[in-house]
Amino acid sequence: MPGIYKIIEVVGTSPVGFAEAVKAAVTEASDTVRHMEWFEVVSQRGRIAEGRVAEFQVTVKIGFQVER
Amino acid sequence: MPGIYKIIEVVGTSPVGFAEAVKAAVTEASDTVRHMEWFEVVSQRGRIAEGRVAEFQVTVKIGFQVER
Amino acid sequence: MPGIYKIIEVVGTSPVGFAEAVKAAVTEASDTVRHMEWFEVVSQRGRIAEGRVAEFQVTVKIGFQVER
Amino acid sequence: MPGIYKIIEVVGTSPVGFAEAVKAAVTEASDTVRHMEWFEVVSQRGRIAEGRVAEFQVTVKIGFQVER
Amino acid sequence: MPGIYKIIEVVGTSPVGFAEAVKAAVTEASDTVRHMEWFEVVSQRGRIAEGRVAEFQVTVKIGFQVER
Amino acid sequence: MPGIYKIIEVVGTSPVGFAEAVKAAVTEASDTVRHMEWFEVVSQRGRIAEGRVAEFQVTVKIGFQVER
Amino acid sequence: MPGIYKIIEVVGTSPVGFAEAVKAAVTEASDTVRHMEWFEVVSQRGRIAEGRVAEFQVTVKIGFQVER
Amino acid sequence: MPGIYKIIEVVGTSPVGFAEAVKAAVTEASDTVRHMEWFEVVSQRGRIAEGRVAEFQVTVKIGFQVER
Amino acid sequence: MPGIYKIIEVVGTSPVGFAEAVKAAVTEASDTVRHMEWFEVVSQRGRIAEGRVAEFQVTVKIGFQVER
Amino acid sequence: MPGIYKIIEVVGTSPVGFAEAVKAAVTEASDTVRHMEWFEVVSQRGRIAEGRVAEFQVTVKIGFQVER
Amino acid sequence: MPGIYKIIEVVGTSPVGFAEAVKAAVTEASDTVRHMEWFEVVSQRGRIAEGRVAEFQVTVKIGFQVER
Amino acid sequence: MPGIYKIIEVVGTSPVGFAEAVKAAVTEASDTVRHMEWFEVVSQRGRIAEGRVAEFQVTVKIGFQVER
Repeated sequence: MPGIYKIIEVVGTSPVGFAEAVKAAVTEASDTVRHMEWFEVVSQRGRIAEGRVAEFQVTVKIGFQVER
Repeated sequence: MPGIYKIIEVVGTSPVGFAEAVKAAVTEASDTVRHMEWFEVVSQRGRIAEGRVAEFQVTVKIGFQVER
Repeated sequence: MPGIYKIIEVVGTSPVGFAEAVKAAVTEASDTVRHMEWFEVVSQRGRIAEGRVAEFQVTVKIGFQVER
Repeated sequence: MPGIYKIIEVVGTSPVGFAEAVKAAVTEASDTVRHMEWFEVVSQRGRIAEGRVAEFQVTVKIGFQVER
Repeated sequence: MPGIYKIIEVVGTSPVGFAEAVKAAVTEASDTVRHMEWFEVVSQRGRIAEGRVAEFQVTVKIGFQVER
Repeated sequence: MPGIYKIIEVVGTSPVGFAEAVKAAVTEASDTVRHMEWFEVVSQRGRIAEGRVAEFQVTVKIGFQVER
Repeated sequence: MPGIYKIIEVVGTSPVGFAEAVKAAVTEASDTVRHMEWFEVVSQRGRIAEGRVAEFQVTVKIGFQVER
Repeated sequence: MPGIYKIIEVVGTSPVGFAEAVKAAVTEASDTVRHMEWFEVVSQRGRIAEGRVAEFQVTVKIGFQVER
Repeated sequence: MPGIYKIIEVVGTSPVGFAEAVKAAVTEASDTVRHMEWFEVVSQRGRIAEGRVAEFQVTVKIGFQVER
Repeated sequence: MPGIYKIIEVVGTSPVGFAEAVKAAVTEASDTVRHMEWFEVVSQRGRIAEGRVAEFQVTVKIGFQVER
Repeated sequence: MPGIYKIIEVVGTSPVGFAEAVKAAVTEASDTVRHMEWFEVVSQRGRIAEGRVAEFQVTVKIGFQVER
Repeated sequence: MPGIYKIIEVVGTSPVGFAEAVKAAVTEASDTVRHMEWFEVVSQRGRIAEGRVAEFQVTVKIGFQVER
């Protein structure tokens, strides 16, 4: 039977890089969402402090299968 | 009084076509969401198996009025 | 001699599917526009009623050659 | 510790203007969402009745910090 | 019977703000177009004179039902 | 008094180049539209025949002031 | 071992509808490409003749795994 | 002689609305830039505090003629 | 019988202008591709050397019919 | 050592065509900017007067290496 | 003599991060394509398994000079 | 008092990865720009040499508060 998926939008952050920010977003979402299958990067931003990158921020859409 | 609407993003699938995939997404969403009023197609993708289209996948945004 | 084309934007609707909504838009436009040559889908939306898709709405741009 | 944010999409409406429609969306969302920090305008539409603008509709994404 | 809609693109202007520019566009269009139902903002620009905003310009698409 | 503008979409063609295709579109439109003030390029395409560019096609939006 | 995929862009056509045009594109591509896994709709256009839709044209990107 | 224009990108803010945020951006820019002629809205965002819109933020591109 | 088309992406260059760069791309492609029917401009860039435009670069998508 | 580049946005104009407008923008910018390496077309517009194209306007982003 | 470039679209994957996925795509493509000169990121996605990022997927366009 | 921000566009490069290229851009900009607060990734490209990624290039917009 064909499946149905829902998509949520989350922002993950990391002082290290973009991949780490995505991992943080997915790990956090795993606390409340099950059956996550894929993510897609929507935008990449960051915060600057004292002339240096202080935080990488990645907005991702996460798709998960609806349980039935 | 002016109304407020929320928008959710859902992926419907169908072996038949795009319209059927949208219908599947809306029908499934109706189990948990009430007062749905419109949808908008975000993207159309699909899965291929053995050289043939195996599944049509349509991502839709669905708007519904917030109950008060 | 090179031709000139004009483009109009029309929304067709159908309870059946996206292709039928496009056909309705083109058929209706044919009442007042001649020499239509192509269409391009701009967006695909729809109306939901009682938890089911009630109407598919397709916005199309239609190109037609200007008579001289 | 780096924070995680979630993003919801809401449509606010107002008979007065775009800013008022955004305020309506945020105020309504505050009933159920806490720690909202920013919004971003996605699209601006409206309803026309009897040749006049009857309603301004603004779709916004709202970001809020996830409580831990 | 399903309806058909046409879309026109109009630029309204106002010295006051964006909502007023939209209202001006819709009011003007009402002189020649009937059964207008919705508008959608395409772009927001403006003219500057002597270091101040002299005019807000909003390009809107306006949808109206075709009479039959 | 603030002005109101309408926008039409036209495709001009030329065997020579893009600027010539725009000129052809504007010249043709001048037969039926008055008070044209600006154009904006929407897309640039063309036809190929026998391995050579046979025609440049430029889609432009043309803005003109509404007479009152 | 992580896989590598290539993406080709193909236009399928059909007198019936958009889903059939996608199927035609995939079936045709299967003659020369193996291990196709997904498609994504890029644009939907069509040809009009004598005031009726004569052909649906769907541009799709098709992804396939590179054999090693 | 044809003119040359430069474009700068500025973010204006206001507690009142979008038009006021644009005006603030233009007024501020007028301290250091002369011969500004037009602006174009790039994005509209805002800050939320205690469940209410605390600040409207509009990113605009401002064009000004280069003095010679 | 409906046709199938493939699309390739090519960058043409010219010291003269954009149209010439497109012509160069199409002429070059004609060495290895047959039945080319249309092109579409994707982006226009260029190289600057010693304060002057040294090269116009146009990225085009070229569509050609698949032989059967 | 890796280089750093800055990007400025400029509008060039010409009564002749798009390529000439780009050249005008680059030539003008060369008065104050050194080490320019590339440009990218952002938009193409123009002014119409008395039913004819009076001016081509091309907005370009110009990249130049930062001297150290 | 001006050069001609072709562009291919490839998806690289990596369990580590986005840069590694790009490197994988380029390295793999080097088996069959020569004179590659640049890449451009088209989209960044990934696969999630058991609540963790299992694979980063980057779609890149790769440009290479055509040998003559 | 509401603040005003300016946005500049910079390209950072790195042989290591995208995050490092962003850091390089911000660090370099800090030599001449003060009060930088955020960045936003505009595009990600790179240079290929001898079949390997030789340089990651990230175009970022950097926002900084205007001193008063």
